Amino acid sequence: MLEDANPSMPKFRKHIFICMNQREAGHPRGCCDPSGQGELQRLFKTKLAQRGVKLVRANKSGCLDQCELGPTVAVYPEGIFYGGVRPEDVDEIIESHILNGRPVERLRIPDEILNTTHEKKRDC
Amino acid sequence: MLEDANPSMPKFRKHIFICMNQREAGHPRGCCDPSGQGELQRLFKTKLAQRGVKLVRANKSGCLDQCELGPTVAVYPEGIFYGGVRPEDVDEIIESHILNGRPVERLRIPDEILNTTHEKKRDC
Repeated sequence: MLEDANPSMPKFRKHIFICMNQREAGHPRGCCDPSGQGELQRLFKTKLAQRGVKLVRANKSGCLDQCELGPTVAVYPEGIFYGGVRPEDVDEIIESHILNGRPVERLRIPDEILNTTHEKKRDC
Repeated sequence: MLEDANPSMPKFRKHIFICMNQREAGHPRGCCDPSGQGELQRLFKTKLAQRGVKLVRANKSGCLDQCELGPTVAVYPEGIFYGGVRPEDVDEIIESHILNGRPVERLRIPDEILNTTHEKKRDC
């Protein structure tokens, strides 16, 4: 279980980056936030706050460059990437990974697939 | 020196998050990207590409919550935060930290100051 904040060590324990990149409908690489409302980020933020979790930030992020596997969420410092994340997955990621240190394997983008799904065109 | 990409291990070696949060002029917490042009992120990206650095991503980021110390840049997986980053600092961060593993101490936000500069109002 993640311990409560220690005032003498205020660095983030986990930093969750939730892609909010927008692309036009029909773009071949897809879009992590088709509604443009940032629902996933707000959901992480709200649920962390509801549970009183400190020093874990649900951060808005630009494109994490795994678009074909999105919606994408990256968790640092461990550098674990999740793909296809839906609002209904947020509780499990918080409970299993953030609070108990067990990444959600069914959503995880394997390291060997990261950065391999497209030509790097560096368009964002 | 950071080695070239190893095709069998394509995970990011470093992931640089550059705050592009916008706030209105005169906001008490300041603004990491007053021009709204994302100059700092584009500069990191361009310079990394010019040097042929692979598997280091200069990522657009929402608010990193160290606004009073911004413009803010976070480098993972090591979780080092820089504050007051100017365009003329980008070369040094790339050369010293990204390529040679020596964080730029003069720009670093000490861990004990992170998250201590304001009341957490969770406004972004």
